[in-house]
Amino acid sequence: MRARLFTPGPTQVPERVHVAMSNPIMHHRGSAFKQIYQEVTEDLRYFFQTIGDVLTFTSSGTGALEASVVNLLSKNDPVLTVAGGKFGQRLSQLCQNYGANTHTIEIPWGEAVDPDDIKTFLAKHPKTVAVFLAHSETSTGVAADLQTIAEIVRQNSEALLVVDAITSAGVLPFKMDEWGVDVAITGSQKGLMIPPGLAMVALNARAWERVEHSNMPKFYFDFKKEKAAQEKQTTAWTPAITLFVGLREALNMIREEGLERLWEKYALLAEATREGVRAMGLELFAKSPSDSLTAVKIPDRIDGLKFVQHLREKYGITVAGGQAHLKGKIFRIAHMGYYDSLDMVAMASALEMSLSDFAWEFEPGSGVYTVQTIFMKENASK
Amino acid sequence: MRARLFTPGPTQVPERVHVAMSNPIMHHRGSAFKQIYQEVTEDLRYFFQTIGDVLTFTSSGTGALEASVVNLLSKNDPVLTVAGGKFGQRLSQLCQNYGANTHTIEIPWGEAVDPDDIKTFLAKHPKTVAVFLAHSETSTGVAADLQTIAEIVRQNSEALLVVDAITSAGVLPFKMDEWGVDVAITGSQKGLMIPPGLAMVALNARAWERVEHSNMPKFYFDFKKEKAAQEKQTTAWTPAITLFVGLREALNMIREEGLERLWEKYALLAEATREGVRAMGLELFAKSPSDSLTAVKIPDRIDGLKFVQHLREKYGITVAGGQAHLKGKIFRIAHMGYYDSLDMVAMASALEMSLSDFAWEFEPGSGVYTVQTIFMKENASK
Repeated sequence: MRARLFTPGPTQVPERVHVAMSNPIMHHRGSAFKQIYQEVTEDLRYFFQTIGDVLTFTSSGTGALEASVVNLLSKNDPVLTVAGGKFGQRLSQLCQNYGANTHTIEIPWGEAVDPDDIKTFLAKHPKTVAVFLAHSETSTGVAADLQTIAEIVRQNSEALLVVDAITSAGVLPFKMDEWGVDVAITGSQKGLMIPPGLAMVALNARAWERVEHSNMPKFYFDFKKEKAAQEKQTTAWTPAITLFVGLREALNMIREEGLERLWEKYALLAEATREGVRAMGLELFAKSPSDSLTAVKIPDRIDGLKFVQHLREKYGITVAGGQAHLKGKIFRIAHMGYYDSLDMVAMASALEMSLSDFAWEFEPGSGVYTVQTIFMKENASK
Repeated sequence: MRARLFTPGPTQVPERVHVAMSNPIMHHRGSAFKQIYQEVTEDLRYFFQTIGDVLTFTSSGTGALEASVVNLLSKNDPVLTVAGGKFGQRLSQLCQNYGANTHTIEIPWGEAVDPDDIKTFLAKHPKTVAVFLAHSETSTGVAADLQTIAEIVRQNSEALLVVDAITSAGVLPFKMDEWGVDVAITGSQKGLMIPPGLAMVALNARAWERVEHSNMPKFYFDFKKEKAAQEKQTTAWTPAITLFVGLREALNMIREEGLERLWEKYALLAEATREGVRAMGLELFAKSPSDSLTAVKIPDRIDGLKFVQHLREKYGITVAGGQAHLKGKIFRIAHMGYYDSLDMVAMASALEMSLSDFAWEFEPGSGVYTVQTIFMKENASK
């Protein structure tokens, strides 16, 4: 079997991106790179649906999360974080680590935060300077109701809304300016479809005001240094040049398709995946599932680690297992990025064959049939 | 003309590395990546000539310099930095930025630090906890006498010696353990011959002791988190996977050739370049030149910015101009990485043709002849 990657980062890299990245390396202070950097920055505005700034760092998404904390906050600033998974927890750890006065709404893994809980918190803590939230929590496959939360934060406080959009930007509907999100962070290896190594921070004028007052030490991740360099069409430090070249090509693909069509596509792939695994007799883990990835409970009678390994070794399909206390309890299938309906049919087929190998009782073919039927209905409706 | 890159980072990427990086992307928590990560880490020990640890970060070299400061130091720690160029200055800025009690030996750009000045400083400031030094100062093309300095630091203090080896590791003789260097930093786009986006920190047991006492806040660049992940054959955060795959191939090439032979090769390419440009009637900028790159003064009667542009546009040769106050005054030719003697002959030829285009008076052919003669002598001696 050939290898097929369905992990929620890295996602599959399109052939066009591979070809672009295989070109001879260029110098990052020359006109060719400057042109690419400008185009990429402009397209990222479209990607985030903002007229604000977008800064791109050579780091993983975690680096950009840290960048947001150290550039937006000052020591002892009261902030709210929402932790319902590993990445929400990471936002809390980052805020605590840098000395913010950190309050956290803890929610059970697999559930979404109740927007009213944020409203109640803000009413009690009117001096909160920022709310940090993961839009799509990659560890649990849960999506937050970001549009509602943004409205609440905007109407009930002066706090900035800082969103980890690492597995949501370009995948779930995300309208930064229209919804009133102040800061959004993403990574290169998710909806942007290129290998990991770049991370982006989009921020508006309200966020820049906070940056002016921040007293936290920073250097590599300094927004103001990066913005000053961007005005000269380059980066503050030597960038991951090949990844920028790949990013330009990926953003071309995203422009060609159009964000609205991509959002619809991902919603469809997600629906088909969810209904397909249900038809195999499996349960979903997330109560408010994200259309970026589907987290599936592994039945008690199946060894979860062995199941994921078997799927990879026998059928070439790599999905992600669970993290932290969910290890061996769930697996996670990505459908964000370079995937289409037939990829999901192939994935469902491998899943069925693996389940059969583990003597799981279900009607073989039912999952694949369900997935295909959903695509057929969608095609018929066009 | 086809494009030829002679910038001191990024340097030319070998075809083998391009091919390796064009393979389908893999997941960074799977066994294939773990294997690559282990091999790369082991080979990097050889590369730095150390039995200590080597941690690899997804960032530019500057990120790894910052990592060294925030992991090794505590606030108000007395440190010594040496600034004789842009990168020495950056070390000073980083130490100051994070609140170290920073003393700096300023030296004129183009000159190397006198090791005795470090000895004198340490005698006066016995509580100095770390000395930060750029081995090969990329902005000026100057090499420091690292072996002598390391001996002085070791014999006259308890201070750690932290070396920016970004344009020296793998190029100039560099024996971390034998010489007594405690921490060494490099980037991926120099002697390691891959695109930018990875940066390495090698550190010994003495350095780890300091890490234990450091009270500076850190997260993305946390040595202890990275080391804990390495014990599980992976990285703390999502790594730039394709660059790791390229790095494995580049390190294979370095192993095949052997470090000693590479050091000899670079010394020869550097000597030929220096003698070649002298034969064209040009002067060298660096008084103690590094064998990684050659900085050449641009004669007053030639417009330096136009000359570099002309070399690139007419002959396809990209060299780097001067930085800061050296802008337009010098240009810098790299010979670290994937270059051989014939590359330097081609570069010398383009340089001669460009000089002629700018009506510079010299004997055309003299530079190319000199370069070739040095290679012929070397071949005859074998």
